[in-house]
Amino acid sequence: MSVKKIFLNEEDIPRQWYNIAADLPTPMQPPVGPDGNPITPEMLSPVFPANLIEQEVSRQRWIDIPTEILEILKIWRPTPLIRAYNLEKHLKTPARIYFKDESVSPPGSHKPNTAVAQAWYNKKFGIKKLTTETGAGQWGSALAFACSLIGGIECKVYMVRISFDQKPFRKAMMQVWGANCVASPSKETNAGRAILKKMPDTPGSLGIAISEAIEEAVTDKSGKTRYSLGSVLNHVLLHQTIIGLEAKKQLKMAGEKGVDVVAACAGGGSNFGGLAFPFVLDKINGEKIDIIPVESATCPKMTRGPFAYDFGDTAQMTPLLPMFTLGHAYVPPPIHAGGLRYHGMAPLVSQCIVEGLVAPRAYNQLKCYESALLWARVEGSICAPETSHAIACVIEEALKAKEEGKEKVILFNYSGHGLLDLGGYEKYLSGKLTDYSLSENELCDSLKVIKDFPKAKKHKSGKW
Amino acid sequence: MSVKKIFLNEEDIPRQWYNIAADLPTPMQPPVGPDGNPITPEMLSPVFPANLIEQEVSRQRWIDIPTEILEILKIWRPTPLIRAYNLEKHLKTPARIYFKDESVSPPGSHKPNTAVAQAWYNKKFGIKKLTTETGAGQWGSALAFACSLIGGIECKVYMVRISFDQKPFRKAMMQVWGANCVASPSKETNAGRAILKKMPDTPGSLGIAISEAIEEAVTDKSGKTRYSLGSVLNHVLLHQTIIGLEAKKQLKMAGEKGVDVVAACAGGGSNFGGLAFPFVLDKINGEKIDIIPVESATCPKMTRGPFAYDFGDTAQMTPLLPMFTLGHAYVPPPIHAGGLRYHGMAPLVSQCIVEGLVAPRAYNQLKCYESALLWARVEGSICAPETSHAIACVIEEALKAKEEGKEKVILFNYSGHGLLDLGGYEKYLSGKLTDYSLSENELCDSLKVIKDFPKAKKHKSGKW
Repeated sequence: MSVKKIFLNEEDIPRQWYNIAADLPTPMQPPVGPDGNPITPEMLSPVFPANLIEQEVSRQRWIDIPTEILEILKIWRPTPLIRAYNLEKHLKTPARIYFKDESVSPPGSHKPNTAVAQAWYNKKFGIKKLTTETGAGQWGSALAFACSLIGGIECKVYMVRISFDQKPFRKAMMQVWGANCVASPSKETNAGRAILKKMPDTPGSLGIAISEAIEEAVTDKSGKTRYSLGSVLNHVLLHQTIIGLEAKKQLKMAGEKGVDVVAACAGGGSNFGGLAFPFVLDKINGEKIDIIPVESATCPKMTRGPFAYDFGDTAQMTPLLPMFTLGHAYVPPPIHAGGLRYHGMAPLVSQCIVEGLVAPRAYNQLKCYESALLWARVEGSICAPETSHAIACVIEEALKAKEEGKEKVILFNYSGHGLLDLGGYEKYLSGKLTDYSLSENELCDSLKVIKDFPKAKKHKSGKW
Repeated sequence: MSVKKIFLNEEDIPRQWYNIAADLPTPMQPPVGPDGNPITPEMLSPVFPANLIEQEVSRQRWIDIPTEILEILKIWRPTPLIRAYNLEKHLKTPARIYFKDESVSPPGSHKPNTAVAQAWYNKKFGIKKLTTETGAGQWGSALAFACSLIGGIECKVYMVRISFDQKPFRKAMMQVWGANCVASPSKETNAGRAILKKMPDTPGSLGIAISEAIEEAVTDKSGKTRYSLGSVLNHVLLHQTIIGLEAKKQLKMAGEKGVDVVAACAGGGSNFGGLAFPFVLDKINGEKIDIIPVESATCPKMTRGPFAYDFGDTAQMTPLLPMFTLGHAYVPPPIHAGGLRYHGMAPLVSQCIVEGLVAPRAYNQLKCYESALLWARVEGSICAPETSHAIACVIEEALKAKEEGKEKVILFNYSGHGLLDLGGYEKYLSGKLTDYSLSENELCDSLKVIKDFPKAKKHKSGKW
């Protein structure tokens, strides 16, 4: 029998995170204020603890992972690298397809990799309570899980009201782990009360929930509350690189000398960056690899948006970040891959695009569900709607390898399972899902909000 | 760092199932008809394929697992054996607690171990379609998964109507794997139509769904349809012994010379038997082990029912089986551990109780949810309501070891995750769950249905 799952021993969990900021050909541009002046670490300190701000701005290549964090990661790490033999056989491709299974964490996705680290650093800094927002609930449950396992640190989640009402199970999950999950807008913050006064029946939005979470953190007079973000920022992507570092070791164990294609879905960028950055380093060092962040065609910031300074959030509470964006006010129509509905792309991933190191691609949801269904029927597992975007890309690449008659090695990130997203599958199976294309006019409209912002510098090569 | 998860290599998946019927001190009593005459294998052939009937009546100790079945089991097997360090620390117990994690299969429980085997043997026998029933959906989704992976065999699931309506996600799961899932009673069978005529608004029952599934199998004139059952029968428990066989190897790898306590929840008995039977063999051979099937106090067949011949199903379509039972018409009040609501216990497990080899225990659901919540907060994962019964027992045993000051080794079966059962947690957390105790009068009433049946022989020692 051929080996399907490649496991590392627990002692082989990487002991350091990889910081790609150390290796990018052009240095990262700093976050700035609306006046164009760089944001200093001190200005971030009411929001994040100093130790995480230090990671956010660090250019040190390798950063040690504290032992206490490793002890908690051990609950589900190292995650297996699995060979998708059945899909290969079904597609009759000469490609060898591997996936890194991040769905095995208790909250069901890659999110806890950074949630555990963030909770630990906050606790170490003396913080007693973390606030955050959550849309569909993946991030909120990851942080709830992390705080529960770390112990001694409270977790407060502002959950977008419509999800709070429609997805009671994600809320229950957070409560099981002891978090306090409230519907946003809530009566607990000025921001929430102001919105409720104007629109008592609002379904809420991620932007509002972010405002509430940040407000609670910065207004706590004890100074013991901070805010936590699940993607986009440098330190978040840093914590996720454990995925790609493990995958590299495992590919070697599988007898592979290299990899030809690396793909992952990208909403805010942490799932993609986590898998891809260690391979981007290889590419910087001269290896030939196609590295593909996959987005939803409904929210096509990487394939159709400009590289520009924009707010990280709808509520305009963050600094301006240099990134591919559709404008911070862009609200994509509802798709089931809630994690891919974010308007911008992490600055680190955006910079990789600018440098030509990674090449984004966009897919519509019907194609993605079709791929997910094929996957479930031949490989057995039901993936998250976000993950289905990576699978659609992998199928395309595997068929291309077949056409070219090449024995390519394809690696992708199986970022989460779909067991709490079966409603989307139900709609797809009953023919109730449709696709959506953003028109050029809508795109132009959506970008108006950023036209007066300071400009992000394009790559010196002039390609972008 | 100490090792938390003990993995076997794929080549270490057991190559044979263990058949405890070969080793029981007293031979099993046969299934009989209402006239008391034994049921012959031929009489079962319209319902099950000959190769599975052969396993059902086999007394051969080791039965080879076909390579093609192993290839599919490899999708998630071998499952990890995990040390619950955090729970030990929390309880301050000297006991070492291990659990076998069967929740890692794509359908989320131990059920696919037999579903894959049954689908494979049916296909080998030339069967083109399997019918089955499902209550909460665990078994139906396991069989849908198995048929999808085996290929070339259809799956038809009769799902109890109230679950069909209330649990659309389990239904979606089955459809993702290509199964045809219909609400029972349906208009597709005589049994279903008759019920619908009398009671058009009935919520359905497992008994009705079984009748429909069996009727469709035995009335298919092509002879290419058979019925599949997810627990209770000998061959089903046989297929699950892979769990205990793996666990034994893994305990050795963890440096344990033996085990003191083995516990698993028991609804029909396959989850318990699968883990426990290889250890029951050790006990037969003289080792001292406490082996505990844990049931719900709401459906206390093992702790309060008699050992007697009774129908395996409410609809009286099966032969009479020698088992602990509350009477085949017993309908326990709704509890969230749907898998523990079956009225009887597998004949093989029942015989182990009669022989004094295993000692059942019953817990109420509030205590079990309390245990599940503690588990989630210290060990991180959210267990199925059924599994919480084993955890309640393990906590009790670990505290006993602490009282006694003994370094006991405790092993239990983590039979499934609770990600599709978060509704129960929600009710528990909001204080809406209650306990239920069966009164002596209710028990006597419930047993009236079996009083004229042939009597099962008690153990020769006279203890039962």
